[in-house]
Amino acid sequence: MPPYGSLVIIVTPRGKRHLRRVDDNDWHTGDGVLSMAAVAEANYGSEVRTSLGVPFRLQEPTLHDLIKGVKRQTQIIYPKDIAYICMRLGVGNGRTVIEAGSGSGGLTVALSWFSGPEGHVHTYEAREEFHKLARRNLEWAGVGQNVTLYHRDIAEGFTITGADALFLDVRTPWEYLDHVVKAVKPGASLGFLLPTADQVGKLLLGLEQGPFDDPEVCEILLRRWKPIADRLRPEDRMIAHTGFLIFCRHQEGSEDFAARRPMGTRERKQEAARRERLSAAVEEDAS
Amino acid sequence: MPPYGSLVIIVTPRGKRHLRRVDDNDWHTGDGVLSMAAVAEANYGSEVRTSLGVPFRLQEPTLHDLIKGVKRQTQIIYPKDIAYICMRLGVGNGRTVIEAGSGSGGLTVALSWFSGPEGHVHTYEAREEFHKLARRNLEWAGVGQNVTLYHRDIAEGFTITGADALFLDVRTPWEYLDHVVKAVKPGASLGFLLPTADQVGKLLLGLEQGPFDDPEVCEILLRRWKPIADRLRPEDRMIAHTGFLIFCRHQEGSEDFAARRPMGTRERKQEAARRERLSAAVEEDAS
Amino acid sequence: MPPYGSLVIIVTPRGKRHLRRVDDNDWHTGDGVLSMAAVAEANYGSEVRTSLGVPFRLQEPTLHDLIKGVKRQTQIIYPKDIAYICMRLGVGNGRTVIEAGSGSGGLTVALSWFSGPEGHVHTYEAREEFHKLARRNLEWAGVGQNVTLYHRDIAEGFTITGADALFLDVRTPWEYLDHVVKAVKPGASLGFLLPTADQVGKLLLGLEQGPFDDPEVCEILLRRWKPIADRLRPEDRMIAHTGFLIFCRHQEGSEDFAARRPMGTRERKQEAARRERLSAAVEEDAS
Amino acid sequence: MPPYGSLVIIVTPRGKRHLRRVDDNDWHTGDGVLSMAAVAEANYGSEVRTSLGVPFRLQEPTLHDLIKGVKRQTQIIYPKDIAYICMRLGVGNGRTVIEAGSGSGGLTVALSWFSGPEGHVHTYEAREEFHKLARRNLEWAGVGQNVTLYHRDIAEGFTITGADALFLDVRTPWEYLDHVVKAVKPGASLGFLLPTADQVGKLLLGLEQGPFDDPEVCEILLRRWKPIADRLRPEDRMIAHTGFLIFCRHQEGSEDFAARRPMGTRERKQEAARRERLSAAVEEDAS
Repeated sequence: MPPYGSLVIIVTPRGKRHLRRVDDNDWHTGDGVLSMAAVAEANYGSEVRTSLGVPFRLQEPTLHDLIKGVKRQTQIIYPKDIAYICMRLGVGNGRTVIEAGSGSGGLTVALSWFSGPEGHVHTYEAREEFHKLARRNLEWAGVGQNVTLYHRDIAEGFTITGADALFLDVRTPWEYLDHVVKAVKPGASLGFLLPTADQVGKLLLGLEQGPFDDPEVCEILLRRWKPIADRLRPEDRMIAHTGFLIFCRHQEGSEDFAARRPMGTRERKQEAARRERLSAAVEEDAS
Repeated sequence: MPPYGSLVIIVTPRGKRHLRRVDDNDWHTGDGVLSMAAVAEANYGSEVRTSLGVPFRLQEPTLHDLIKGVKRQTQIIYPKDIAYICMRLGVGNGRTVIEAGSGSGGLTVALSWFSGPEGHVHTYEAREEFHKLARRNLEWAGVGQNVTLYHRDIAEGFTITGADALFLDVRTPWEYLDHVVKAVKPGASLGFLLPTADQVGKLLLGLEQGPFDDPEVCEILLRRWKPIADRLRPEDRMIAHTGFLIFCRHQEGSEDFAARRPMGTRERKQEAARRERLSAAVEEDAS
Repeated sequence: MPPYGSLVIIVTPRGKRHLRRVDDNDWHTGDGVLSMAAVAEANYGSEVRTSLGVPFRLQEPTLHDLIKGVKRQTQIIYPKDIAYICMRLGVGNGRTVIEAGSGSGGLTVALSWFSGPEGHVHTYEAREEFHKLARRNLEWAGVGQNVTLYHRDIAEGFTITGADALFLDVRTPWEYLDHVVKAVKPGASLGFLLPTADQVGKLLLGLEQGPFDDPEVCEILLRRWKPIADRLRPEDRMIAHTGFLIFCRHQEGSEDFAARRPMGTRERKQEAARRERLSAAVEEDAS
Repeated sequence: MPPYGSLVIIVTPRGKRHLRRVDDNDWHTGDGVLSMAAVAEANYGSEVRTSLGVPFRLQEPTLHDLIKGVKRQTQIIYPKDIAYICMRLGVGNGRTVIEAGSGSGGLTVALSWFSGPEGHVHTYEAREEFHKLARRNLEWAGVGQNVTLYHRDIAEGFTITGADALFLDVRTPWEYLDHVVKAVKPGASLGFLLPTADQVGKLLLGLEQGPFDDPEVCEILLRRWKPIADRLRPEDRMIAHTGFLIFCRHQEGSEDFAARRPMGTRERKQEAARRERLSAAVEEDAS
């Protein structure tokens, strides 16, 4: 049974799903009034009838529902990406993770959820409106006891050190890599989300020039199927792009290690040419 | 620094990644002997040299590394799917989740990780060899304090009740739906993994006939890109299929609710025809 | 320059693309009147101005434009699928190909185009309205000189024999396989389009029981990217499903050939079990 | 029946497919000798037995088989891409199309096939070995009567003018755009294949600065399914990347047209910033 003050999903016969809070405010709908007292006494997975006798179904919100229900003023990260990010970064009970920017707080909700009572989330946001929005969304979702929100531009650096993992969802992450290194413990897992291929290229260039290793770039595609037993088929349309995910590790490295990397002749030539172009570009930037 | 007895990832200059335990056994490699005492005193994210002076890199294993490192005698579930399953089922600290079969224990590792100190995982496996393998893998990964493993065929039912969520990775999940309902609390989240479209059809048919709602079917595709700054392109090949994921909720329902569902005329006719075929099939099965 | 009577693509500054015929009817638009005499004297790839001085761009329609421009009362096959179908069936100059049903004639336009002056297309359609629509669309597109349209239900069989290839875009293609065999020459290439996995299963079962070999099932996905030089990224959404394509060959076969097929023990057992189920199902149907 | 001198597909009971020529050379296989005289008298779609009584199946090669059978010393374009390219470029009987480089001639085979007796293909290749290879492959495939092969570097320009369409499969297509414009008729359709995102960006930049319009970028993914009636599922792995396809039109344009394009304020600002960066880059190149 949904405790007083908690969120509950209410499904109408028309198939609409509403996230509502169980409080003193009965819900006035086109199908009649839904008594929240009745909701509070009903089981999840059962139906409650409105004043007009229309049955509404009750469900307990999962993390997935909470993320989708977050009020947003920014593009939020999709649940499919959030789930994979949390796994790749090793988010879990007792872990400390840094996030910037907070945005609407969708990822923050998940980081808080998976970090458990002994973990901690530090989330940075330069714009005050988003900083406040993320805070409101954490409160709304009933999580966030293990979250510290900072209203701060990470161009000025992070305020903590020794984090196990760090995730950047900002436009120009390559500009903050020095700050990143100072904020995390040696060998930490790092993640990034970027919408365009050009940004990915710039980030990879930045990672190459710093103490980082094991870069990985991927996209995650979720393809839904129509759940009809004897007419099974994919849905007609799908979300085709939500961003590129990039992961890597902080890694101190020796010239020696790099030199021992196996490469074909052609690859070695290309690499030499590339490094030349690269250092030319860097000199040019400096001039 | 990796504590004595813990797992550590060791990366060679050739790019091979090894998951090794930090104990009294030094590692004899083609590149010389790696002293585990030296490893135990080094930082993650640094390099340690073998007796031949070859630098090896140390990293702390994340959940992702642990899942990939599990010894397997069965097809294991992929990390991309595991991450999404955990999110969709609302796995988290304080939650109770049931899994069957345990298989090699890859998903069990993740469920244990995300369930936190106050959550609990109950995992069932009919075949003794897999039951033992899952136990060994949990121990190997250093998780499992919150896991109970059962050597039991779920055809005989589950042994607990009131779980928040349940996941079935078995060949004929539709045969166990009655047991599923008894094992979970009202409104619980349910998940399934099935390799073929025909199985998905049978499961959907089974779900339709029981106290379930909100069926969803999807596939998750992970497409990797070559992480080369100025020659960015997807990898040539990818894993194209790891199984269909099916999610739903336990839900008590009224005829009334179903009757109020909006449908077009054509859809209604199709639905009537379908129900007729369906009940014919059920009668046939019973005869 | 577009000849009098031909189709031309007119692109407005707003980015709208219109397929119009060059005839005596000037085009009255919100941007002024476009003189078709002026269009007829302009080059493709140039601009013509309306009476209000607004520049419109002229392009010559390609096969791709014609297929997209076909008037439709049915779901039409997508260009990406049409292109692959034509290649797989070996459509080309001098070849004879059968199609059913004609539908709106989108595929027919392409078959006609690629069959060249010495090839021939026979297209069958049971419903008179579509039969007429397909004819109108062929005329509109300026192709079809090498096409014969039949208003006929293929349940009564095809009226020709010896075709090089045959394509079925009907709901229950497995019901017509006997007719298919009579209509094509030995070894002909066959293709099918089906929206659901269940239909694919039924077709494969039908093909297994007849003189066919080399079944292939595939989906073709077209993913568009936003063509912006320094912000390259996939479009947000895409068409996720337009149908499964199935291809095979007519093939007379011996028991001997099948028996020599290499199979593992497990595969052989499964195959035996499957054939048993299959023949049981066939007997049941016959009873 | 396969004519003397033609190619035929021979399928063994092991499932191997061989493209062989029907000539005086009998085929000595591990399963016995296959008499080519017997093959020449058999129907496509039938079986012929070797001297050891093993049945081999005969099939007529389609365009798809020919493309896959081309001897290659270069990366060839995939049939899925070739089919779509032919459709998008409007290749057909009576059309003139230019291609560079010829490579192994896989695309050339298809262009020749679809161009029909009244169409013509002009294909350019800078490297002599590939030029010769493409010629051999056209002869081998029994097409090419409507093809002219040039051993020539397109950096020196094309030798013909007025082509209906042009396709470039070269590393730096943006360097040849001036030559392209001279080789085609006004409004011609143009296509490109490029493996990396960076190349696509450079090409788009080049197209923006020339008389071109309607740029489109896409990828085509072919996902195969295992063709087993009651265990239908996608194959485990797939080709994930074969290149980006880019299409556009030659188009003379006015400033006026571009200025009338609808854009939001944000888009307009970005566009202005972009043009500034762009012209800075061009000046830099020139200095």
